[in-house]
Amino acid sequence: MTSGRAYSVGIDFGTESGRAVLVDCADGTELGVAVYEYRNGVIDEHLPEPDADVRLEPDWALQDPEDYVRTFRQTVPALLAETGVDPADVVGVGIDFTACTMLPTLADGTPLCMVGELRREPHAWVKLWKHHAAQPEAHRINAVAAERGEPWLARYGGRISSEWFFAKALQILDEAPAVYDRADRLIEAADWVVWQLTGSETRNTCTAGYKAMWSKHDGFPADAYFAALDPRFEHVVDEKMSREIVTLGARAGGLSERAAAWTGLVPGTAVAVANVDAHVSVPAVTVTEPGTMVAIMGTSICHMLLGDALATVDGMCGVVEDGIVPGLFGFEAGQSAVGDIFAWFVESCAPPEVHELARRSGTGVHEVLEAEAAKLEPGESGLLALDWWNGNRSVLVDADLRGLLVGMTLATQAPEMYRALIEATAFGTRVIVDAFESAGVPVAEIVACGGLPERNRLLMQIFADVTGREFAVAASSQVPALGSAMFGAVAAGSALGGHDSIVDAARRMARLGSERYRPDAARHAVYDELYREYVRLHDLFGRRGDDVMRNLKSIQRRAVETARTS
Amino acid sequence: MTSGRAYSVGIDFGTESGRAVLVDCADGTELGVAVYEYRNGVIDEHLPEPDADVRLEPDWALQDPEDYVRTFRQTVPALLAETGVDPADVVGVGIDFTACTMLPTLADGTPLCMVGELRREPHAWVKLWKHHAAQPEAHRINAVAAERGEPWLARYGGRISSEWFFAKALQILDEAPAVYDRADRLIEAADWVVWQLTGSETRNTCTAGYKAMWSKHDGFPADAYFAALDPRFEHVVDEKMSREIVTLGARAGGLSERAAAWTGLVPGTAVAVANVDAHVSVPAVTVTEPGTMVAIMGTSICHMLLGDALATVDGMCGVVEDGIVPGLFGFEAGQSAVGDIFAWFVESCAPPEVHELARRSGTGVHEVLEAEAAKLEPGESGLLALDWWNGNRSVLVDADLRGLLVGMTLATQAPEMYRALIEATAFGTRVIVDAFESAGVPVAEIVACGGLPERNRLLMQIFADVTGREFAVAASSQVPALGSAMFGAVAAGSALGGHDSIVDAARRMARLGSERYRPDAARHAVYDELYREYVRLHDLFGRRGDDVMRNLKSIQRRAVETARTS
Repeated sequence: MTSGRAYSVGIDFGTESGRAVLVDCADGTELGVAVYEYRNGVIDEHLPEPDADVRLEPDWALQDPEDYVRTFRQTVPALLAETGVDPADVVGVGIDFTACTMLPTLADGTPLCMVGELRREPHAWVKLWKHHAAQPEAHRINAVAAERGEPWLARYGGRISSEWFFAKALQILDEAPAVYDRADRLIEAADWVVWQLTGSETRNTCTAGYKAMWSKHDGFPADAYFAALDPRFEHVVDEKMSREIVTLGARAGGLSERAAAWTGLVPGTAVAVANVDAHVSVPAVTVTEPGTMVAIMGTSICHMLLGDALATVDGMCGVVEDGIVPGLFGFEAGQSAVGDIFAWFVESCAPPEVHELARRSGTGVHEVLEAEAAKLEPGESGLLALDWWNGNRSVLVDADLRGLLVGMTLATQAPEMYRALIEATAFGTRVIVDAFESAGVPVAEIVACGGLPERNRLLMQIFADVTGREFAVAASSQVPALGSAMFGAVAAGSALGGHDSIVDAARRMARLGSERYRPDAARHAVYDELYREYVRLHDLFGRRGDDVMRNLKSIQRRAVETARTS
Repeated sequence: MTSGRAYSVGIDFGTESGRAVLVDCADGTELGVAVYEYRNGVIDEHLPEPDADVRLEPDWALQDPEDYVRTFRQTVPALLAETGVDPADVVGVGIDFTACTMLPTLADGTPLCMVGELRREPHAWVKLWKHHAAQPEAHRINAVAAERGEPWLARYGGRISSEWFFAKALQILDEAPAVYDRADRLIEAADWVVWQLTGSETRNTCTAGYKAMWSKHDGFPADAYFAALDPRFEHVVDEKMSREIVTLGARAGGLSERAAAWTGLVPGTAVAVANVDAHVSVPAVTVTEPGTMVAIMGTSICHMLLGDALATVDGMCGVVEDGIVPGLFGFEAGQSAVGDIFAWFVESCAPPEVHELARRSGTGVHEVLEAEAAKLEPGESGLLALDWWNGNRSVLVDADLRGLLVGMTLATQAPEMYRALIEATAFGTRVIVDAFESAGVPVAEIVACGGLPERNRLLMQIFADVTGREFAVAASSQVPALGSAMFGAVAAGSALGGHDSIVDAARRMARLGSERYRPDAARHAVYDELYREYVRLHDLFGRRGDDVMRNLKSIQRRAVETARTS
C-alpha cells in the first residue's frame, strides 16, 4: 500500500562526492539530502592502496568506479531513513554526472580496473573529466578533422577538447593497446551507473552529443574519420559503443534486484537515462524554453541556452539537438575560470590588512573585499581586466590566453582590483550573451545557480548591470540532484505520479528564489563604456591582433626548460 | 694658520631634510655628514602653527624657507665640531636643491611668507617641486606655446610640466595677484639659499635651463609669449627675475658675515652658484664626458647624459647647454615611478605569507620577494608589465598613462609579479637608452646612484641584463652633497686648494664602487625577446594606438563625480 504521494530520487555524481535528494513529484519539495564523500576522490598522483606504488603522469585524473556504487549504497538508504518515506512511494530515480568521465569495461559492465590482472594499469580506471593527459590525441583529432573538413567540427566551436570522449579513448589505444583490446565497452560513467542500476546498457543524447561528436541528424563521425586517426580505431563505435542513443527523460529500465538491495528502493522502479550536471540543471531552474540562459556559476561558469533551431554561434562549446530538453537545440558555452580567479586573488594578492580585517570582523577575506568593492561606482577604480587566468573557453576557445589587468596607479587598492576581476568575468559572460544574440539565439534573461550566486550579492548585481539582463537565482541549493529527480519523475510518467515530460516536471517541481537582480540603468550605461574597452582588448589579444600572451607563454616554456637544466 | 689641507662643504636640500658633508678636496674623502629634518617638512594640508587654520587645496605642496636657514645653522657647525676641521681650511661651499622649488621675495630676499601681513597667504610660501596645483597654468603654457610655434618647446619633449617655474609663477598671478604684485623677485629656492649665504642674488644655468625654458643661445622665451599668457605677465623676466645666468661652478660670492655666523665658517669663503640634486650627481659619480649615462634610482629614476651637440631626442625632459657640465649639453630623462611601484606592490599586493616569511626571517618584505624572484629565469613567470603606475615621463611624456600587467594564470605567485615589475622598470630605462642612441647620443655604460642600487642587487643585475650595458654604482651614499662640495671646491679654485674645473674636481674627488653589474649574454637574449613584446605594448598603449588607459581615466573621473554626488 502506498500513501498516494509520489517521490523521486535524484543523484548528482560530482568530482569529490555524490549527493542524493528525495523530492516530492507534486511540488518539488526536497525532503532530504545525503552526501557521500568518495573514498578515493580524485586519483591524480598514484593508484589507491594496495597499488599506491603505481604513480601517475602529470595531468592525469582518475576515479574509482566503486565510489559510485558506494554512493548508491550510502546515500539512498540514508535518505529513506531520514525522511521516513515509504520506498514504494519512490516512483523514479535519475542521475547526473560530470562529463566526459569515461571508463573501459567488459561486456557485462565490469570495469577493467576491477579485473584482477588489470588493476595496476592506470588506463583501466575511470578517466575523470579533468584528466588532461590526452592533449596529443586531441591535437590529432582536431588536425585530422580540419584536414578532412569534417562538418561536425563547427558544432563545437571548431575545436575538440582533450577532455572529451574520443581523445580519452584514443589515449588508451595509443598508450595501452592491450587495455583497449580488452575493453568490450567504452562508456561514459553517467551511462555506466545507470547500467549498474538497471542491469542494461543505455547511452544518452547529452553526453553523446556534447562529448562524443554525435548528432541526432548525422550520428557519429564516419568510420573513415576514425580510421584516419588510427586504423585500429576505425570501428570504435560499433565495436565498443552503440549507435542507439536514448533521449533524455526516457526510462532506461527498471531498478534491478541488486540495485534495489543497494538502495532500499523497490525492484522495477523507473530509472531515467543518464544526464550531465550542467545540463540537468536547466529544467531544474524552471527553464524549458528558448530565451532564458542558465548560468551555473562556481569556480567556472557554464552557460546553457535553448534554441528552436540549429545556429552556428561563434566559439561555443557545443550545440546538441535534444541535448538538454527534447525537441530543442541545447547550446553550451563557458568561462574557464570565474570563482577560481577570485580565490587566486585572495590567496596571492590580498594584503595582510584585508586578512586582518576579516579576522577581526569574524568574516572571510572574500566578504571584506566584497564589502569594500561594493562601495565603488562602476568605473571608479580606473581598472579593467581580461578574465583569462585559465584561458578562454568561449568565445575564443584558446587555452593559451592569459590574464590582464590595466589601469593601476600608486593609489590602487586591493578591493578595486577585486571588483575589476568580478567585472571582467561579467564582461566575459556578456561577450557570450552577445555571441548568441548575434547568431539569432535570443537571451532575454538569465537564471543563475551554483555556489557563487548564493554567496555573492555584489557579483550578481554586477552581472545584471553589465549584461543589462535581469538575473533570477535558483531556489534550491541542490540544483543538479533536483534536476535528476525531475528526470526520474519523467521516467516514471504521470500514471505513476510522475510527469509525462520534463516541461511538465519543471512546471511542477522547479522554482526560483524570490530575489531578482535587476540592471540599474545608470550603472549599465557606465558599464557599456567599459565593455567597449573590454571588447577592444578582448579582440586585440584574443583574435590574434596582438600575440603577446602566446609569445609570453612560448618564452616561458623555454625559460622553464632553462631553469630545469641549469 | 691653516693645515695645508683644503676642504669643501656640500649641502643637499631634499624634500624632507637637508644634509651636509665635509669633503677633502684632494681625494674626495668624506670626513663627516650631518642631517637636519625640516621642522615643517612638506606643507600639504595646512599652514604651520600658528596659522594651521589656513587649509590648502588638493595638490598643493609648500615648504618653509626658515627650514633652509635652519639647515645651515644645524648641520655645518655640527660637521665642524664632529670632524675637528679648522674652518679656515674650508675653502668652498656648494649647494644643490630639489627643483623647481621656488618662492616670491622682497627685493632684499625676504620671503613674502615672512612678511607679517602675508604669512597667512599660501601663495607667499615656497612652492615645492611636487606642488601640482598649477596644472591649469601648465595647460595654458603648452597651448599658447604650441599655437605660437615656440621653438623652445622641442627642447622639453614638447610639453612643459606643471611643476616648472612659469607654471608656478603664473598660478600666483592667477590666484593671488596681490602677492604677485608684492613680489619683487621670483626665484628658485636653490638660488635663494645661495643668496642667503653670499648676500647677493645669482641665477644658475641648471634651473634656468631645465625649469624656466632658458637657453644659453636664445635666453628666455620672448616677452610677447609671456604677454600672450597674460598681459600682466609680459615683463615677468625683467621685473622679477634676471637675464644674467651664471655657469655652474662659478663663484656666486663670498660667505657673508651673517652666514659665517650661522655656519661657523670663515667670512669670504667661496660659495658656488646653485645646482640641482640630480644634475650635481653626474660629476659626483665621475661622469664629465659623453657616453656614460647616470641613473639616479630611487622612488623614481632620473637619467642624466652628456652630449657634444644639441640633439632632439624623442620625449626627453630637457636638454640644456652647460646645464650639467660647462661646455657640454646636458640631457635629462626620467621614469616617474620605480621604487614607488615596488613599494606599492609590497603595500597593496603582497600576501600575508610573504609578510610572515619576512617577520620570521627578520628581514623585510622587499628582501623576501627579491630572494624568491631571484630564483626565476628571465621569462619564467610568463608575465610582462608596463611600468606606468605614475604615468610616463620619458619618452611618452603622458601623465594619463597607467600600469598594466599581463600573463597571469591561476598559478601566478607574488614573487613572479614583483620580478615582472622590476623588469618593466628596466625595460622603461632601455626605451630611454634606445631613444638617446637613435638620436645620435651614445650610451655606452651606466652609473647608478640613489637609494635602490645600494639595496637591491637583483634589480641592478636585471637592469644590466635588460639594457645590455654594464652598470657601475657610486661609492658614496651622499652623492648629491658630494657633488655640491665638488662645485664648492671649483668655486674656490686650485689656488686655494680647490679645483679649476668640475672635470678636475671629478678626477680627484669622485669615485665609483668596485662592484660592476655585467650583462649576461643568455639572459640578455631572452630579455631581447621580452623587450620586443614590451615595446609593442608600449607603442600600442602609449602612442595612441589604443586609448584604453585614457578612456579608463576619463570614465573614472566621471565615476568619482557620481560617487561624490550620490
